[in-house]
Formats: sequence, structure tokens, C-alpha cells
Amino acid sequence: MAEPVRRTRGGGGAARRAQRSAVSFETAKYIERNIPNFEVLNEEALEIIERNAETILEEIGVNFPDNPVALQRWRDAGADVQGERVRLPRGLARELIKTAPASYTQHARNPDRNVVVGGNSLVLAPVYGPPFVRDAAGGRRYATMEDFRKFVKLGYMSKWLHHSGGTVCEPTDVAVNKRHLDMLHAHMTLSDKPFMGSVTEPSRAQDSVDMCGVLFGKEFVQQNTVMTSLININSPMTFDDVMMGALEVYAQNNQACIISPFIVGGAMAPVSVAGTLTQVLAEGLVGIAYSQLCNPGAPVIFGAFVTSIDMNSGAPTFGTPEAAHITYGAGQLARRLNLPYRSAGAFCGSKLPDAQAAYETSNSLNMGLLSGVNFMLHACGWLEGGLVSSFEKFVMDADQLGTLHHLARGIEIDENAQAMDAIREVGPGGHYLGCAHTQANFKEAFWKSDLLDYKPFETWEDEGARDTQTLASLRVEKMLNDYQQPAMDPATREALDAFVAERKAAEPDSFM
Amino acid sequence: MAEPVRRTRGGGGAARRAQRSAVSFETAKYIERNIPNFEVLNEEALEIIERNAETILEEIGVNFPDNPVALQRWRDAGADVQGERVRLPRGLARELIKTAPASYTQHARNPDRNVVVGGNSLVLAPVYGPPFVRDAAGGRRYATMEDFRKFVKLGYMSKWLHHSGGTVCEPTDVAVNKRHLDMLHAHMTLSDKPFMGSVTEPSRAQDSVDMCGVLFGKEFVQQNTVMTSLININSPMTFDDVMMGALEVYAQNNQACIISPFIVGGAMAPVSVAGTLTQVLAEGLVGIAYSQLCNPGAPVIFGAFVTSIDMNSGAPTFGTPEAAHITYGAGQLARRLNLPYRSAGAFCGSKLPDAQAAYETSNSLNMGLLSGVNFMLHACGWLEGGLVSSFEKFVMDADQLGTLHHLARGIEIDENAQAMDAIREVGPGGHYLGCAHTQANFKEAFWKSDLLDYKPFETWEDEGARDTQTLASLRVEKMLNDYQQPAMDPATREALDAFVAERKAAEPDSFM
Repeated sequence: MAEPVRRTRGGGGAARRAQRSAVSFETAKYIERNIPNFEVLNEEALEIIERNAETILEEIGVNFPDNPVALQRWRDAGADVQGERVRLPRGLARELIKTAPASYTQHARNPDRNVVVGGNSLVLAPVYGPPFVRDAAGGRRYATMEDFRKFVKLGYMSKWLHHSGGTVCEPTDVAVNKRHLDMLHAHMTLSDKPFMGSVTEPSRAQDSVDMCGVLFGKEFVQQNTVMTSLININSPMTFDDVMMGALEVYAQNNQACIISPFIVGGAMAPVSVAGTLTQVLAEGLVGIAYSQLCNPGAPVIFGAFVTSIDMNSGAPTFGTPEAAHITYGAGQLARRLNLPYRSAGAFCGSKLPDAQAAYETSNSLNMGLLSGVNFMLHACGWLEGGLVSSFEKFVMDADQLGTLHHLARGIEIDENAQAMDAIREVGPGGHYLGCAHTQANFKEAFWKSDLLDYKPFETWEDEGARDTQTLASLRVEKMLNDYQQPAMDPATREALDAFVAERKAAEPDSFM
Repeated sequence: MAEPVRRTRGGGGAARRAQRSAVSFETAKYIERNIPNFEVLNEEALEIIERNAETILEEIGVNFPDNPVALQRWRDAGADVQGERVRLPRGLARELIKTAPASYTQHARNPDRNVVVGGNSLVLAPVYGPPFVRDAAGGRRYATMEDFRKFVKLGYMSKWLHHSGGTVCEPTDVAVNKRHLDMLHAHMTLSDKPFMGSVTEPSRAQDSVDMCGVLFGKEFVQQNTVMTSLININSPMTFDDVMMGALEVYAQNNQACIISPFIVGGAMAPVSVAGTLTQVLAEGLVGIAYSQLCNPGAPVIFGAFVTSIDMNSGAPTFGTPEAAHITYGAGQLARRLNLPYRSAGAFCGSKLPDAQAAYETSNSLNMGLLSGVNFMLHACGWLEGGLVSSFEKFVMDADQLGTLHHLARGIEIDENAQAMDAIREVGPGGHYLGCAHTQANFKEAFWKSDLLDYKPFETWEDEGARDTQTLASLRVEKMLNDYQQPAMDPATREALDAFVAERKAAEPDSFM
């Protein structure tokens, strides 16, 4: 019942040092589900949504503003293009997406950390995008590059996290036109897990590809997927030229993109679940079809970032049942398209890593696993509606991700699991603690938190009656103290440093 | 998409006062699932577990200590009885349980609050049994009858809670042999929701039946189920004579019992999920068969209270993936027996209503809904492994129970839900906030918390940067201030008071 667990690479000395450390450097293999997906929509409902999505594309269409190249691609593919509006004949998008692979491997510089995205797999990646960070000691503040590096280190050391992510926080102290270089450099050098590329300008996507060429070798990058990057659709039904430009760079270089409507329900999509799913499907079909127009066969993920809204305040709300319905439904739609699926995350609206944050997060994580998500961005560290990357919540969530691994195993039913000998041995009125079956199996039987408190009340009180946030602060501190950088060929490191220095010197700083 | 919501009864004045109050007195109807159950075991695994359970009953048997009446019943039914050990021929238990109903109605004194237990329903009841209470102001302390009354009031006022429960905390300031009278009196007079009876002595079960005779009328009680009470099995495979005596009283009076193995995995059952499920099934079969030997047709619930264990400390652990597996699996086994199913709850091991508590609780609540639970005890207020009833967590969990109601609705797919006119109206690049469909639907579209914080950061900070526990403390205080007792016929009230006074006078206090 054990996951295949992989120890970090490194020399014998590093391995011994890692073993002596109380903080684990193991990384679990990405999740391979041995449980069914939870399906809330029946065949009739799915067909209605699919038919309506085609109606949207045919009747209403989508916008590709400021993008004559894209419009020409659509014209050539047989779409009806009027101004920036693109209308697709029924079935065109479905035909175009047939070249997209059902799954792909994203390579890491440490091949043991490669991930498969699609099928029954689930890859977990950390929070993406917040301009602020928070910790218990320092409160809420603008994120810096130093914060960014700390999150990459924590991600590297988090056993249940398979992916280093992308913009784990927005390093606001580095120029907007240069911070992607520092972020990529951090992912490449401070971790050996797979990572994401920049999407804020097509040129920065190209920088990401080029920098991967330094790390992996140019030829390797052209033949293998080494990044999965996030392309948001500007819902409703608008495909921003910057994002489409980045998508084009990645697709043409055989790099993967998540193509994801970004929806606050009731604002960017209808206030109903079925209506939102219809729009999500229409948008996803167009985005993925466009990736295949750029390069047939380019790896893509069908994404759905969807939250509900508090209609009193207009605030997005997280971990809600309506978000769960959409996530379950979108998973069914993605599987019917035979595409990898991205959704869910450690979503919450709370300002603090408190009970609200945890209720909302658990609702979302559980629903993400059961809905068949293949790539879960924001799987740890997300706070305050995505405005804040929280250090404490990062390690709290990362610990909970272990529950998803164990849930996904399903239930063993072999002779050892049936445990009939144990039941015979113990009998009525006995207890199992000392029996042979328990002794043989207890180490692997139950998921065990590395963070949560299971101590007797008196011990807990003597130790200061600490709550989860306090325990998490201590864990963050210990992990950062125990961090050891994964080994890297010095020539590669120098080449990466030189690449960043050269690109930075090539243009003045911009903070716009 | 609205649940049928029922306003509290009472005179016009009371109703107007209730309407003026900001705290809601509405109670949602019990959940009727419009979503599938999540099934983790395949047919082969189910058959193995069922076959093994029969093997346990045939080969190993179960104990009915100190209970010659029960042993004689088993002999008469065709079991092999040796000493206190009862072995059942294959198929006997399955044959006996056929008389148990697939569902039943539990009546409340307010008929609008009646609940149906079984089928696709889910009835939510509060925490049961803790000797301690905790709130932010007073910390952790032994529970008193005054605490008990407060919890009954909170339960009465909690919209998503359908049931008043039983021992919401253990009132340690009242004599052990008399506290059941005060507890029942509180449920009967401070709430009008359905409730549970005493099981700590057969005579107290009889008191519960008699007191219900006063409240509902003796004839009504004989013809209708007015209590659902909790009979624990002393796992492994031991049926305590006190519990069996209480079960006998209830069964013979047509009152419902949850028959529930009480298992800390690895201690009272094998350390494997399949082994635990096998034992749970064997135990449940025997307990339910015994209820039908006492009175064929008596309403019963197949229960499973199962936690995992921290093998380092021996502490039970909650909200874990292994507990989820067992809960999903036991639901499948219960449905194959065509019996109502009890499991899950707001389980957590945390000492405080913090993030740990909420992670563990959400894991368990979500799994409870999806596993097809029909009766969920401990659905709010549970803290510290069941040692503590928490005031703050009671209202925090009770708020989260709203998410289960909305999840269970499933996804509407009618024309309004499809929202095609809204998508046409808004078009690419627009927004939905003001469109006709949103205006018509937003009030019912999304579940809304009555507790959690969705405010802008600055507002939240100006108001004191309150965490969930702080908000919950305020809500507890407000609810208790706003509480209004449901109306009761004065003659009934006097008769209840007299019943309690008479029973209390009949014997000296005992604190053993």
C-alpha cells in the first residue's frame, strides 16, 4: 500500500545529511487514482451542455481582439470571422482538438520527478499569482523575490507536492519585465521538480523556452515537454492577444499549456451551474482548438477556474457547493473530450489560515480529487481569494495533500487486507494492537500528518496549547533551516546565471 | 432551487418577533439527495467482504455476556450458543434482518420537523457524548446541565440541523441516574426538533419511552417512532448487556436505534480497511438481527463509527483517508442490506476550533454526504476526539452543513439553468452582474454562509481582523440572546415537569 517514494538525489553525504534531518526530503510520486470519478451530470444533461456550447460558438462566437494573425488562422480553418468576432461552425472546434494528446509527460531536471498529466493521474502544484504574502510574524505585505525563493524551497521539500509551480507569489521588488527571469532561475536552481513558464508577454514565454534550452539542452526541449504554463481566457469568451501570443510560443515549441476560463460565477458567467459549464466548455473548446491551429499535437490541459460570488459584496467565494458542482461537471466534459483536466486547489476566501480557510480548502481539495482533476494548481498556500500566498497555509495544505494520495489508493482487497487471520487471532472482546497482522501492517496502514496535533491534552497544554497556525509557523522555520539545494552541474548553473544577466542587461527596468 | 424552508411555529407575536430578529429560526428540510453515492468497492470486493463476514459469524461468533435472555433468543433462532459465545449459521443474520424497514419517519412534536431516515435522505444531528465543553471565553471545563441547555437552544436555532440529538454534552453536575430526565426535558421543551433517548440503562430507556408518552400521547408513541437512540457495539464482536437491554426496550416499543460498532481502527478492528469493513458488517448484522428478534419490524439504522489511529501515540485520528474508505465502503454494504445508514460527522482530533479541526471536519462531512449516510450524528460541535463539545465549533460546523444541502441538490438542467438567453444577452467581453437572468436567479443561486468572512480586507482589518473562532463566539452569544422557546401546551409542560420530579424523587442521587 506504500506510494513509490523517491529520495532526493545528491551525493552520499547529502543523502546522509538529509536522513539525519527531521524534515523529509522525499517526494511522493504523482497520484495515480485507483478510485472512480464522481459524476453528477447524467448523459442527457451532458448532451444538452455540449449542444448549447456548439450553439454559442456558432451563433454568438468569441472575440480575438488585436490579433490579426489569430483571425487569419481561424479564417483558414473555416470559421466565420467578422471584425474580431470568430464564429465556429458546429463541430469545427471538436474536430480541431482531436490532435491534442490525452496525456503527456512533463520532464523535470531530476527525471525521478517527471510527472504524467492526464488519464488517471493527479499532479499537485502550489499557489500561483498572489501579489501579497502573509506569515504569522510579519503579517500581510507585498511579496518579494526573497519570499518567492522561500516558497520554492518549501515546495521542493514538501513530500506530497509534485510540481514547483510558477508564480508562487509575485515578486514585486523586481522589474515587471525581468522578474520572470529570476522566477525561472529560482525554480531551476532551488528545486528539481517540474515548473511553469512565463505568460505575461510572448517574449517572456520565449525567454522561458530559451532558458529551458540552457537547463535541459535545446534539442531535448524541442522533443520533450519541460513546462506547463497557465493561459487564462478572459471570460466571457474573449481571448486576450498577450495570452494567445504566449500560447502560440509554447505550442510551437511543444510545451504544454493549461487553457483555462477564469470565472467568478454571476460576473463572468451565468449565475447558474449549467450555464457556467456551457460557457466553460465553449471557451475551452476554442482555446484548445486554437492551440492545435498553432501546432497540431501540442500538449494542452482543459482548465476550469471557477468560483461563486457573494452577491451582497461582490466578493468571490471559495469551497462552495456551486463551485464543486462546476468542478465535477467540467471534469466529465473534459473526459468526454479525452483531454487532461485542471481545476480545484486550496481555495479559500479567509484572510487568515484559520478554520474558515481550512473548511473552504478541504471542500475544494476533496472535490478536486473526486472530480478527476489531472493537474491541480493552487494545491497549497492560497489565501484571501488568491491575493495572498501564506507561508503557514502552504505547509498546512501541503500536509493535507497526503490525504488525497491515500484516498486515491482505493481499498486493497487481497488476503492480507482481508485480515481474517487477525480477526480469528483476536476474537470477541480482544484487541488488535499487538496482533501479528497489526505489527506487520501498521506502518503503512494509515496516512499520518507531519503537522497536526494528536498529543494528549495535558502534553498539548504543557507545550503552550498551540493552534495549527503556530505549529505551521514552526514547521516553516524548520524546513527553511533544513533546506539543502539539490545538486546541479556547475557549468549549467553558470550558463543559467549568464542567461539571466544578459537578458536583464538588454533592456531598462519597467515596473508597468 | 430553494430548499423547502419552514418557519418556526408559534403565535403571531412570536413569529413577528422572530422575523425582526437577525438570527434565523428557519429549519431546512432534511436533505434529499439528488446526486449519486460514491462507491469505492467493486462487486467482487463487496462479495468477498460479505462472504468473510458470514465466516466470522459462523466460525468465530460474537459474545453476548451476562445476558441469558439474549442467549435464549439466539438459541431459539437457530444459533449455536456455547457459554456467552453465539455462532450464527451462514445466512441466518441476513434472513432475520429482512423484517427491518428500509426507511422510517421519526416524528417531532412539531410535525413540520419530522424526518425520514433511509432511502436518499440525510438527517443531521449534533455532537453526542462529550464530558467537557469549551468556549473561547471559558476554555475547557466539565459540562453542566446549563451548557446542555445552551446546546439544545443552538441546535433549535440552527437552520441546517434537522435533529436535536441526544447527549449534546454530558451534564456532569446532575446525578448519573437522573440526568437523562433533565436531558430529555430540555430536548422536549427547548426545541421542537426530533431527539434521541437514553441508553445508559434499560430502565432509562423505559423512562425515555414513558416521557415521550407524556409529550406525544401513549398511543401515538406505540404507533409511531418518536426517538432514534444510539446503541454501540463493544467491538470486537461483544454485545454489552446494558446496551442490548436498552435496544430491547426501544425495539419492543417500535422506537428506532442506531446499531453501531465503535471502532478505533488498529485497536478494536484490524488495521486494514477491508478487514475493518468485514468486522463492521458482521457486527452490524448481529446487532440488527437481534433487534428483529426482540421485535420484528422495529426500525434500525446500520451504523459505523470508525476512526483511524496514530500508531505512535495511540490517539484516534479523524478526517483521515482510511476513515473515508471505511465510510464509503460501509455505505455500500448498508445499501445492499436495504437498511438506513449512519456514519461520519464533524470529526476532528484538534483541541481548538482551528484549521486542523476544520480540515478534519470538512474531510469527514464531505465524505459522509457522498457515502450515502442517512443519519449523521456528531454533525456539528465535536472537538478533541469527542471529549469536548465546543460552542464555537457547533455554530461553525452548523453553518458548513448548508454546503451539504446545496451539494445534494445536484445540477439543475432546465431551460432557466441552461441560461442561453443570458449568454446571448451578455456576449463576449460583457459581464453578467446586471443581466436579466442574474437578477432573476442570484438570490437562490449560491449557498451563502451566515458566519464566514467575505468582507474587503480593509473592512475586515478595521473591524479587528477577527478569525473564525472570534466570529463564531459572537454568533453563539447572539443566538443565545435571540433564542425564543417554541410554544408548548401548558398542560403538557406541567405533566413533563411532574414526570421528571416524580422520577427524581423515587431514588437517591448516584454519581457512579
